Amino acid sequence: MVNIIDGHNIADKLNIETKNRVDELKKKGILPGIVVILIGENPASVLYTRMKQQTAAKMGMHSVLKKFPEDVSQDEVLAAIQEYNEDPTVNAILVQLPLPKHLNQTEIIEAIDPKKDVDGFNSSNVGKLYNNEKGNYPVSCTSRGIMTLLHAYLDQLEGKNVTIIGRSILVSRPLQSLLINENATVTMVSLHTDNIDYYTKHADILVVAAGKPNLIKKEQVKPGATVIDVGINKINKHLVGDVDFDDVKEVAGFITPVPGGVGPMTIATLMQQTVDLTEWSLID
Amino acid sequence: MVNIIDGHNIADKLNIETKNRVDELKKKGILPGIVVILIGENPASVLYTRMKQQTAAKMGMHSVLKKFPEDVSQDEVLAAIQEYNEDPTVNAILVQLPLPKHLNQTEIIEAIDPKKDVDGFNSSNVGKLYNNEKGNYPVSCTSRGIMTLLHAYLDQLEGKNVTIIGRSILVSRPLQSLLINENATVTMVSLHTDNIDYYTKHADILVVAAGKPNLIKKEQVKPGATVIDVGINKINKHLVGDVDFDDVKEVAGFITPVPGGVGPMTIATLMQQTVDLTEWSLID
Repeated sequence: MVNIIDGHNIADKLNIETKNRVDELKKKGILPGIVVILIGENPASVLYTRMKQQTAAKMGMHSVLKKFPEDVSQDEVLAAIQEYNEDPTVNAILVQLPLPKHLNQTEIIEAIDPKKDVDGFNSSNVGKLYNNEKGNYPVSCTSRGIMTLLHAYLDQLEGKNVTIIGRSILVSRPLQSLLINENATVTMVSLHTDNIDYYTKHADILVVAAGKPNLIKKEQVKPGATVIDVGINKINKHLVGDVDFDDVKEVAGFITPVPGGVGPMTIATLMQQTVDLTEWSLID
Repeated sequence: MVNIIDGHNIADKLNIETKNRVDELKKKGILPGIVVILIGENPASVLYTRMKQQTAAKMGMHSVLKKFPEDVSQDEVLAAIQEYNEDPTVNAILVQLPLPKHLNQTEIIEAIDPKKDVDGFNSSNVGKLYNNEKGNYPVSCTSRGIMTLLHAYLDQLEGKNVTIIGRSILVSRPLQSLLINENATVTMVSLHTDNIDYYTKHADILVVAAGKPNLIKKEQVKPGATVIDVGINKINKHLVGDVDFDDVKEVAGFITPVPGGVGPMTIATLMQQTVDLTEWSLID
């Protein structure tokens, strides 16, 4: 029988833990601070940034939502980041993606101080993760959130065959690094892969981050596999994932629903990592 | 019929090209400079560093072999790197690995200016590669050398299924990044993988970097596959690879011999990349 992975439950537990850590820091006179930068008015971005800013505020953190108009210049964004890099009340800086096309996303991400790069996208943090360096550094919140889900439901990841559909730098690639560093065997497949099923059918853990509604059917899934659905697609006002949930739950061992699976973990991990960055800044 | 990949031939061609680029730079009054740092007296390291330093000198570059005793302190090494980072006659800094155990290898690699990091191991260069960033940055010489071999013998890498045995940060991981960025589908397998053959038999390109002599036999190889052997093992004074060459050549389409396959590409790529770094420093 399939087990539904309860992202809300795991996220709630993590949030309680994080809130406790915030309280402990505040007792010592330390206030974790996060700045969320929103550029333009993409409805999803407006929604996500508001949720992020409000969740941090509710946890008692110093939480700023900095808005720029759609036509802001590259230099203005870089100047603001530079200011927050130097601002001791700010421990975490997040630039909501995607950015308007006239902006250079790579340059903006690279401008964030790696020690305040709460999304973990800065190349030096990515490189440390890929090289499995010891020490403290942030990683992609969604990827780390998926790892928290996996650890909550599976005894170990070592030796597991993992197939990731999609190879984005925001989720798939950092997740691949995290899994490899825990001794899983990982294949990232893409639309260039000629026989995706060869990899999906062998996967003990199947992660789908393709952005295509109901792409994955039960015939493609190994019986008993853990299926993690990163997709968020809107169809007739309903949210659906990249996995055909009702079909795949007949064969999967564990499966995340959409909504209520991976989604809640992203913001919970963002909060967790803001506190991490604050604590790490004290021991540097 | 199998085709033997001729690493010496490809390396020679690359070296001629690199030598021409050095000559062109010298006409403009620019002398590419490389420092090779050797710590201790590991016989293989002594051999490799001498070959690197001498090849660079033969090409007309400014080429320094800086030796430290086995018991050098971390601070002395870091101070030397800092000096070379600031030295305008030095475009490329290489620290020969492995290091004596009392030294912190990560800290030493991270101390090299990313713009002079000719081995491409600095986390910021690794992260740029993994994120497929545009622009100029160095990458692992052996990995890039393998890509040069593949491009010399195969029309395209897009859509190819690749299995890499081994997951070192020096070769396997950067090679994985390079291949993914060219739209190949890559699985890195390790000793934690329960059924390695599932991945090797599906591989259009099989890269073996396991450090185990004659590990791979023909039953594990897809007929017609391209087999790249990164292993260098000494058995009874003979060098052998990680692939059982005489056995596997019966089924492979292309195969690298050991010696004479990947080996010559590493130093040739080091020379190429030293000139790259020199040219990039002019346009920054």
